[in-house]
Amino acid sequence: MGQRITVRAIAAETGLSIATVSRVINAQGQVSEDTRRRVQEAIDGLGGRAPATRPRLPKTELPVLVRCPYKLSDYFGALVTAVAEALEATGRHVLLDVGDSRVDVPVVRALPTAQTTSGAILILPPEPAEDFRFLQSRRYPVVVLDPRTPLPRGVVSIASAHTAGARAVTGHLLDLGHRRIGVISGFEDWLSGSDRIAGHLAALSEAGLLGDPHLLRHGEPAIHTGIRAGRELLDLPDPPTAIACFNDKVAVGVYQAAAERGLTVPADLSVTGFDDSEISRAAAPHLTTVRQSLDEMGRIAVTMLVRLMERQALDALHLELATELIVRGSTGPVPVRYQGS
Amino acid sequence: MGQRITVRAIAAETGLSIATVSRVINAQGQVSEDTRRRVQEAIDGLGGRAPATRPRLPKTELPVLVRCPYKLSDYFGALVTAVAEALEATGRHVLLDVGDSRVDVPVVRALPTAQTTSGAILILPPEPAEDFRFLQSRRYPVVVLDPRTPLPRGVVSIASAHTAGARAVTGHLLDLGHRRIGVISGFEDWLSGSDRIAGHLAALSEAGLLGDPHLLRHGEPAIHTGIRAGRELLDLPDPPTAIACFNDKVAVGVYQAAAERGLTVPADLSVTGFDDSEISRAAAPHLTTVRQSLDEMGRIAVTMLVRLMERQALDALHLELATELIVRGSTGPVPVRYQGS
Repeated sequence: MGQRITVRAIAAETGLSIATVSRVINAQGQVSEDTRRRVQEAIDGLGGRAPATRPRLPKTELPVLVRCPYKLSDYFGALVTAVAEALEATGRHVLLDVGDSRVDVPVVRALPTAQTTSGAILILPPEPAEDFRFLQSRRYPVVVLDPRTPLPRGVVSIASAHTAGARAVTGHLLDLGHRRIGVISGFEDWLSGSDRIAGHLAALSEAGLLGDPHLLRHGEPAIHTGIRAGRELLDLPDPPTAIACFNDKVAVGVYQAAAERGLTVPADLSVTGFDDSEISRAAAPHLTTVRQSLDEMGRIAVTMLVRLMERQALDALHLELATELIVRGSTGPVPVRYQGS
Repeated sequence: MGQRITVRAIAAETGLSIATVSRVINAQGQVSEDTRRRVQEAIDGLGGRAPATRPRLPKTELPVLVRCPYKLSDYFGALVTAVAEALEATGRHVLLDVGDSRVDVPVVRALPTAQTTSGAILILPPEPAEDFRFLQSRRYPVVVLDPRTPLPRGVVSIASAHTAGARAVTGHLLDLGHRRIGVISGFEDWLSGSDRIAGHLAALSEAGLLGDPHLLRHGEPAIHTGIRAGRELLDLPDPPTAIACFNDKVAVGVYQAAAERGLTVPADLSVTGFDDSEISRAAAPHLTTVRQSLDEMGRIAVTMLVRLMERQALDALHLELATELIVRGSTGPVPVRYQGS
């Protein structure tokens, strides 16, 4: 490695002002792509190491953006609360961006130049991969909680171990003798949904079974989806004896579809949820479900963000938190008429 | 009224710097009580009108604090989401302070001097009345959503019409022939609880009945309270035929206490909730409940706060939003054996 090139030398070489070169080097303020390219070419041409970036001021006085462009529910609310409490514990404040109306607002791309935040935690972000690459190119500290789609290399993310959780719940149903297991997943393009279907298929495969595409449904993770998809599955000529649901709300919807058809849970139909939210203990019978450590997810997201803000090296870029199968009253042995079938 | 006294004259009179006098007049920055008193005495002594306060800069760039020192649930999450979306629609950002761990943190008193926020919306604030008087003395714009205790005169607040809502639900139970009606309220010192008990007693009174103190229970508005208090009420020598609950979660707990005793809802026991949260439609049978307009409460809180920040006059300081009785499957006629009793 050669000697460090000075900002002054780059300014002389490019004809740009020292302030502009400094902004490029320190990834601060608005700089055009053309300017950035000219600075990089000058550094390459001068044949040394790039100038040292300015030691950053401690930006603890700037808040951290927490973006969750959905209505805060028991689920999202628990995540936001955990993140906010952990941030306050580090002396950082929370700038909040929430609600369905915010889903299409181009907040993320404006973050590096706005300089009103020191970093961001994005919950189930709807933004495309190129937005994350943009943040990376600006070295803006960001952590994704519960990624909605696969993220570009190098983006830090925290999620539940969806695959392992779904594999455990399907394994539990297989142990009870179920062979025709319906699955009501979330939106078709959500990473959590495809990860959970993978876990479901893995468990079936271990039992020597292939998944039946006719037993798979998708939809918004809400009660009405459970009612609609539950009706469809239960009205099949060869209906499932168990239905694994994307979350506890969907499962409660399936309870209703079952009740409409005179089916008792779990004698006629086993049902499982996901989340272990309060609704899982409000349902009768209480739901067999998969607990996600939302509090712990929030705390770890903050730990990772702080390390990014402090420019520490991160080894594990994608963290998955263990889930826990909670067996309650909504799952039981396959009905006798189906046993051995 | 005499002529206006100048800041310079007060500085000369008190020996304080012009900057300090200006801070007192404009209620900005940290000023000791002694300094404040000396300035006031100088104004009184000089015998004219106090200096005009400085025209305030538009502080729209400063965020609004939204404080809700509880875990965000379907209920609190909906309030926070509505407030945040409404604030963003006015171009204001949200600084968030949430979580049980934040309940005793003295955030509120620091607001006027910190100058990091342009105003605050406080949800079910645990702060004592003197904190609100302090904010008033500093002319700091604040709106309370769902007051927990009675507020000092002049503090702007928004709440559901708890009394009317509870009166409607008890009236509905009376119409069905119920005479022994249990009440499971929230924490004993919450304004919403005492307002609802007042509504309950008013409805009983209109039917020529007095409330029975043995039929009243208190507790955290959660499922476990419904189980515990439901058991207590149902195990009375002369149990109630209906139980009106503080929220839908408590009602779901009462379902469980009833089921333990082999009682069917609503044939043996009518149960009502409050909130019309998603859990009310997850319960079987679906809950008769009282809908609060959480979205509208959030929007109105923001409207009122903006008017305070713009120093507009407010006529109505305490707003109550109408509630709506939602009759579903958890309420029915009083069991035959109790009719006419």
